[in-house]
Amino acid sequence: MKAEIIAVGTEILLGDIVNTDAQVISLGLNELGIDVYYQTAVGDNPERLKEVLEIARKRSDLIITTGGLGPTLDDLTRETIAEAFGKQLVLHKRSLRRITAFFDQIGREMTQNNVKQAMLPAGCKVLDNEWGTAPGCAFEADGVHVLMLPGPPRECTPLFHTAGMAYLAKLAGGVIVSRNIRIFGIGESTMEDKLHDLMEKSTNPTLAPYAKDGECLVRVTAKAENAEEAERLLQPAVKQVCDILGDVVYGVDVESLEHAVAKLLTAKGLALSVAESCTGGLLSKRITDVSGASQFYRGGACTYCNEIKMKVLGVKKETLDEFTAVSSQTAREMAEGIAKAYGTDLGIGITGYAGPDGGEDGTPAGTVYIGIYYQGKTNVRCILSPRGRERARWDAVNNALDMILRAVEGRKQLLSVERGKVV
Amino acid sequence: MKAEIIAVGTEILLGDIVNTDAQVISLGLNELGIDVYYQTAVGDNPERLKEVLEIARKRSDLIITTGGLGPTLDDLTRETIAEAFGKQLVLHKRSLRRITAFFDQIGREMTQNNVKQAMLPAGCKVLDNEWGTAPGCAFEADGVHVLMLPGPPRECTPLFHTAGMAYLAKLAGGVIVSRNIRIFGIGESTMEDKLHDLMEKSTNPTLAPYAKDGECLVRVTAKAENAEEAERLLQPAVKQVCDILGDVVYGVDVESLEHAVAKLLTAKGLALSVAESCTGGLLSKRITDVSGASQFYRGGACTYCNEIKMKVLGVKKETLDEFTAVSSQTAREMAEGIAKAYGTDLGIGITGYAGPDGGEDGTPAGTVYIGIYYQGKTNVRCILSPRGRERARWDAVNNALDMILRAVEGRKQLLSVERGKVV
Repeated sequence: MKAEIIAVGTEILLGDIVNTDAQVISLGLNELGIDVYYQTAVGDNPERLKEVLEIARKRSDLIITTGGLGPTLDDLTRETIAEAFGKQLVLHKRSLRRITAFFDQIGREMTQNNVKQAMLPAGCKVLDNEWGTAPGCAFEADGVHVLMLPGPPRECTPLFHTAGMAYLAKLAGGVIVSRNIRIFGIGESTMEDKLHDLMEKSTNPTLAPYAKDGECLVRVTAKAENAEEAERLLQPAVKQVCDILGDVVYGVDVESLEHAVAKLLTAKGLALSVAESCTGGLLSKRITDVSGASQFYRGGACTYCNEIKMKVLGVKKETLDEFTAVSSQTAREMAEGIAKAYGTDLGIGITGYAGPDGGEDGTPAGTVYIGIYYQGKTNVRCILSPRGRERARWDAVNNALDMILRAVEGRKQLLSVERGKVV
Repeated sequence: MKAEIIAVGTEILLGDIVNTDAQVISLGLNELGIDVYYQTAVGDNPERLKEVLEIARKRSDLIITTGGLGPTLDDLTRETIAEAFGKQLVLHKRSLRRITAFFDQIGREMTQNNVKQAMLPAGCKVLDNEWGTAPGCAFEADGVHVLMLPGPPRECTPLFHTAGMAYLAKLAGGVIVSRNIRIFGIGESTMEDKLHDLMEKSTNPTLAPYAKDGECLVRVTAKAENAEEAERLLQPAVKQVCDILGDVVYGVDVESLEHAVAKLLTAKGLALSVAESCTGGLLSKRITDVSGASQFYRGGACTYCNEIKMKVLGVKKETLDEFTAVSSQTAREMAEGIAKAYGTDLGIGITGYAGPDGGEDGTPAGTVYIGIYYQGKTNVRCILSPRGRERARWDAVNNALDMILRAVEGRKQLLSVERGKVV
């Protein structure tokens, strides 16, 4: 079944809002094994909406619209769809009662224009909207299934997840199940090079590579009659991908590097503290994005000047004088210093030039040293992330989290790039 | 001019990501006075992309595509567009040099598949991408203007805002100049209430209110023959809006609260340090998002457990025992403690329940106390932000930044909400 999602609303075309309904519905359709081929957004304009519907009914078996079901003059989805598919609009009494009751409840008078929200295509399945006034509905015409949903996400999402998906599950049959294999330490093109042959010959499950924010992932997706059969297809494919990629895989179906760290350190009962200079608190922020981080995270220090590095972390003046604040030696002393000051099993120290400026000695912007102290040893990785301040900070934190995982899991640390040379 | 935005990427149709590029581009086109009539998303499938392009070229004068410019097998936008518009792809040497240099700089080997990113339609205007590898480009064919942009938002947004909009401004004619008036401390509906009459009668400049991430802004936009004329139209309108809104306006054309703080503290030569509990480093991260923050920011402490609050900040055991860690008293001692420990003019202390859980004593999740120490005095604000962990942390940081601005500018502090009562 080929699906198309059509958002109706000038506010989307003006950029006032982003079309999150399309994402929510796409995720749901993929769960049901229904392929989404197109997402379209069009304004509150009946001629253009009608043209978009004419295109959609030729190329899709399922059309889901969002928006344009409200009481105002420019809400024209219902009327336009009814006309396009040759349906009469008839008053749906249960919906009118629900809308009237809604206004009674909030103590406002129901104006006449609200009645039109209860006018629905004759013979449709009504999807009762418990989260707002306009009901959704579904019908079939000339072999095409049409679903109309309200636009506001707080109505669209729950209505789709309940009545909408229940209606569609009956149409679809079968299931689709995915696994996300998360990768840190190689780029998208290297990953794709390694997986190229396997991807070419994989049809079910399929392999889809993605790169985002300095990480990669491979999504393995199986279609099957039922969940058990999908699982049987997935397991060997996931294992094959993990075997090919080796130790750059840091987790399967884990949300992010920080979630992997939280899970690992909580399970092992290890305490962590971090000292940050150029990342300015981003590592601490990302760790504490994970709810329950207090189980393993004791805290951190952002040491944004040399005096504070010395005072709070005990970094030696001679180290700063001889090697500068941006050096392997300083990162090492920061990692060791915070672990000691905060009394933790692991300590991280990050120092670098986030940019836009590099060092006075010619060290380029994006050079960052990351130290990790664990079990009496300290390891330092140097990275060069030349794509701007924000990205350099993000990459430094990704690397710090990767170093924690590798240290605790006993995987070997990646090599550093130090001022152009691999060290 | 009628524009259509086409996103190419199966990850959008799978619901893995939301199509934020379309929003960014729609906003920009509206600023330029170009009407967006359609947004479309299609997968990494050359046949379907070609069909979508055929539809678009018939109904639109300007087509902007996002995505599908990367190095992998399924990145096919360039090839498909070139074919659809009868253009040869030729190697663009400057782009290839840029891509090669990029890989050299990060110390990774450039795989052969990266070369295709430098293959661009003959005669196109190349839009150099400083934020990633794949260049954008623009050309005209049969009266239709085509712009191709990379998909990742951190590349698409800056490239569109610079080279993309500059290219389009030339097509559109005239100038459009905007001022953004930034507001913290009132909600969107209050702001709209206050500005309602002025908005109704404003045609040039226009006033557009926005609310985002706990802040509001009013965008004042003038259309004119030239920049000087636009400026003459803007000045009185901006003054009028500021007069109506009063002391909740924290800046005009300033990027964010943290940028306003950076500008103010740098100008005054004041030093800042911060102590964070529930915000976990987010305040420190946002302050150091601003390049040049080391001019005024000495550092911070994330004190994520009571022992560290006592040890690093000198919060008293009796305070924690009597009032708990989430209290006005603890926020006060944290603010004073960090200012003393780090030797700064201003100190901030933040403690609260970010959620999902509140306190064992029934204090709801989203309750946060923010203390500010400045010139021998300490002020505490309590907020209740009940919309989830991430938003509570964000709101707490917004309030801390607002408190810094008000303290240093001598504006009066806002009232607190303490456990349901205004204090």
